[in-house]
Amino acid sequence: MSDNGASTDSPSAPQWRPVARPRSHELVIAAVEDQIMSGALTVGDPLPPERELAARLEVSRAGVREAIRVLEAQGVVRSNVGAGPLAGTFIASMPSAALTRFLRLHVALSNFPMTDIIDARVMLERNSATLAASHVDAATLASIHTPLAAMDVPELGCEPFNDADTDFHVAIAEASGNRLVADMTVAIRASLREPILRAMRRVPDWPSLRSTLQHQHQTIYDAVAAGDGERAADLTERHIRAAFDALPALGDD
Amino acid sequence: MSDNGASTDSPSAPQWRPVARPRSHELVIAAVEDQIMSGALTVGDPLPPERELAARLEVSRAGVREAIRVLEAQGVVRSNVGAGPLAGTFIASMPSAALTRFLRLHVALSNFPMTDIIDARVMLERNSATLAASHVDAATLASIHTPLAAMDVPELGCEPFNDADTDFHVAIAEASGNRLVADMTVAIRASLREPILRAMRRVPDWPSLRSTLQHQHQTIYDAVAAGDGERAADLTERHIRAAFDALPALGDD
Repeated sequence: MSDNGASTDSPSAPQWRPVARPRSHELVIAAVEDQIMSGALTVGDPLPPERELAARLEVSRAGVREAIRVLEAQGVVRSNVGAGPLAGTFIASMPSAALTRFLRLHVALSNFPMTDIIDARVMLERNSATLAASHVDAATLASIHTPLAAMDVPELGCEPFNDADTDFHVAIAEASGNRLVADMTVAIRASLREPILRAMRRVPDWPSLRSTLQHQHQTIYDAVAAGDGERAADLTERHIRAAFDALPALGDD
Repeated sequence: MSDNGASTDSPSAPQWRPVARPRSHELVIAAVEDQIMSGALTVGDPLPPERELAARLEVSRAGVREAIRVLEAQGVVRSNVGAGPLAGTFIASMPSAALTRFLRLHVALSNFPMTDIIDARVMLERNSATLAASHVDAATLASIHTPLAAMDVPELGCEPFNDADTDFHVAIAEASGNRLVADMTVAIRASLREPILRAMRRVPDWPSLRSTLQHQHQTIYDAVAAGDGERAADLTERHIRAAFDALPALGDD
């Protein structure tokens, strides 16, 4: 629309740079994703059979097969073997677990500064706590209370404590009622499981830290149970930042 | 630890259910991910050669090859062909683009209610606007101003407007200085590109909506430029919710 054919910054000499040649399976993946993003393919729709898709995209059948493998691994498609109308490859609704897996790998490998991760957690979990407190019921409270009680077991070691701790934060995220926010919260907490565990093992006085953390969990639970979203959010932020400060080795990973 | 060998809910008759048999490449992917999450493999580390990895994991070489293809597509590893010390497969730092790609597919396929997506955007972009306003400089302001000016072109159609609109929100997210929050913001905005475009095309009075949206963008820009984070966050929330209300068809996708 604004392209008038003239370019003021064209260089005076031709320039030759290596051209990236995408491999067949990458082209197939991009083609499937384009159809999904444009809305032409939605959950439950079948992909054309391998032979037909290869012919239409003008790539090898091996390229189609590899692309489908990749898309399967990401939860974008699922394949049913056998014959009949249910056989074939279909667009799938990506499970929350796929996002958790991907995001925790991303956090593990992308070298985000730990403060960015902590700030992202604070943002997400403040939001979850506020929402959870705003529509709390008995079943939700029970789901938050179960991991809280699990952390009360005397002499609990770092690892089972950390698992119950994760479950506690995840339960509040699930109680938010916002599936997308919950998925992101769970993924980031999951990405911190191992670094937190390593840091916990290096804390000199674990029983003392454990009882401090558990006291903070209890006050968050009480605020959610009382329906006080603002207090729940503030206590959650204080708890996350205090835990980070108490686990200085966390920043060294 | 709490497993005492007794189970109170074991059924009286044996039950036979199909056992899920993970395929080789899935086992290889899980093995690589476990090493990454435990910290044993980090960015730049080589994977063992295909033959050796297959032998150690007791799977076929084809399984290893397929797993590496999947991990490559996700940006978890990259492979260098040829010989010498630089050849082979290495753990890569997943690029932000990989998260954007994954998250927008996830949002497109997971059937999140549109209100969940809008609420997640509000949370993320309030946060970004606050942070952007807190450490604004000339270069950052210029990066936000460029797409703002692009939207001022008279008679701009839906698609170029929507692209500049995305760029405007992305520039504020980048200016937040929190890479993880920015990545999530960009991914969610990217996932909405097509649905927003489809909804825009159905708006009866596009020039009027366009000028309303552009006025809102201008006030957000002014608040960020003035360093007023609270005002920038409030205006951003109002803008996102107003745009959603003005694009009622958005909820129908």
